[in-house]
Amino acid sequence: MAEPEFLIVEAIYPGMTQLDFTAPHTIFSRIPGARVVVASEPGGPIESDGGLVFAGARRMAEIERCDLLFVPGGYAATEAANDQAFMREFRRLALTARYLTSVCTGSLILGAAGLLKGRRAACHWGWRHLLPLFGAIPDPARVVRDGNIVTGGGVTAGIDFALVVAAEIGGDALAQSLQLALEYAPAPPFDAGRPETAPPEVLAAVKARMAPQLAERAAAAERAAARL
Amino acid sequence: MAEPEFLIVEAIYPGMTQLDFTAPHTIFSRIPGARVVVASEPGGPIESDGGLVFAGARRMAEIERCDLLFVPGGYAATEAANDQAFMREFRRLALTARYLTSVCTGSLILGAAGLLKGRRAACHWGWRHLLPLFGAIPDPARVVRDGNIVTGGGVTAGIDFALVVAAEIGGDALAQSLQLALEYAPAPPFDAGRPETAPPEVLAAVKARMAPQLAERAAAAERAAARL
Repeated sequence: MAEPEFLIVEAIYPGMTQLDFTAPHTIFSRIPGARVVVASEPGGPIESDGGLVFAGARRMAEIERCDLLFVPGGYAATEAANDQAFMREFRRLALTARYLTSVCTGSLILGAAGLLKGRRAACHWGWRHLLPLFGAIPDPARVVRDGNIVTGGGVTAGIDFALVVAAEIGGDALAQSLQLALEYAPAPPFDAGRPETAPPEVLAAVKARMAPQLAERAAAAERAAARL
Repeated sequence: MAEPEFLIVEAIYPGMTQLDFTAPHTIFSRIPGARVVVASEPGGPIESDGGLVFAGARRMAEIERCDLLFVPGGYAATEAANDQAFMREFRRLALTARYLTSVCTGSLILGAAGLLKGRRAACHWGWRHLLPLFGAIPDPARVVRDGNIVTGGGVTAGIDFALVVAAEIGGDALAQSLQLALEYAPAPPFDAGRPETAPPEVLAAVKARMAPQLAERAAAAERAAARL
């Protein structure tokens, strides 16, 4: 008898950060024995940030269960956390999953689903302080594992995160072969990827640009938390 | 009078490696003053590897010119290099561009367009040795700049590559602010991203898996090179 396949559901929503979704998808879709299903609440095309439109997402309601549930982040994450139809399907699938996973502000969606109470989780550095609204413990690590919950930090952390997940599902040699096939030997031209290492004027500029969104998103996160 | 916008055209094709495309797109689409146009030869939906379908690509023939032309790689790169309709439009746009750029095996497409004669270029480690078919000089660096040509290595090198391009177009502070916003402080769980560092048995397994494709792709690259 064949091994039952390992079903990964990627729950996406309008306005997600596309790289939060596409980097893990690249790795998940190359795990032998895993089947990846991309789904949104209504199904059909989904527009991400940066204008890319993904066609062909399945309807979440059509999917009975999964082994691993994944959700990306994005400026729209707190909007998704307040979308009752999305959250109902997300929670239902989460109850069937062996692993609950996210990248970036996707952890705010896990939190809003009531799945992070007392659990450590990663999040994008700019929004990590919102996690306690959902009873979660913010962790600055790039990939955080707490029991069956695996979360990644901001955007590009999705590569490191997905390799950790691949190693968990298929073993270290599989993850290493994916890393080699994707030539993942990063060499950033600057050392500006974290608030602690970025030039102070760069950090100040990015924070200033995020400020209006932060106020709005914090209010949305509070609304979502009030429903828990 | 407003600054004229900097037009980036991303030339995509069926079977491209989606992360080759989506990682640079994330960065290019966040460069202030740049407009990014995604285009394919026929226009419309394009299916990438891993099953993701991108909707809404423009027809290449509709685009008059660009400042920067970008092409991703993928197992299908040598197929694209033999697609006369795609290559005709690609060459036409290349002649209008100030910068010619690629990630991964996208450099084989630049080569097949006759743009790399005597120029250094990067490529995925597994296919880099095919560059001399097009008169190019293979360079193992993660990001290679030779005059107006900027090329990145395999798949994930697209992040480093696009940050180098962002710095060239908009300055170091812009590239650093994008790096910070994308939290690009990589922490791979293994050191297996290059043939030189991967465990020998992992390298052997990946090479064995690539072998049948390599023979076929090398033959396709030779057919494309014969037309130069």
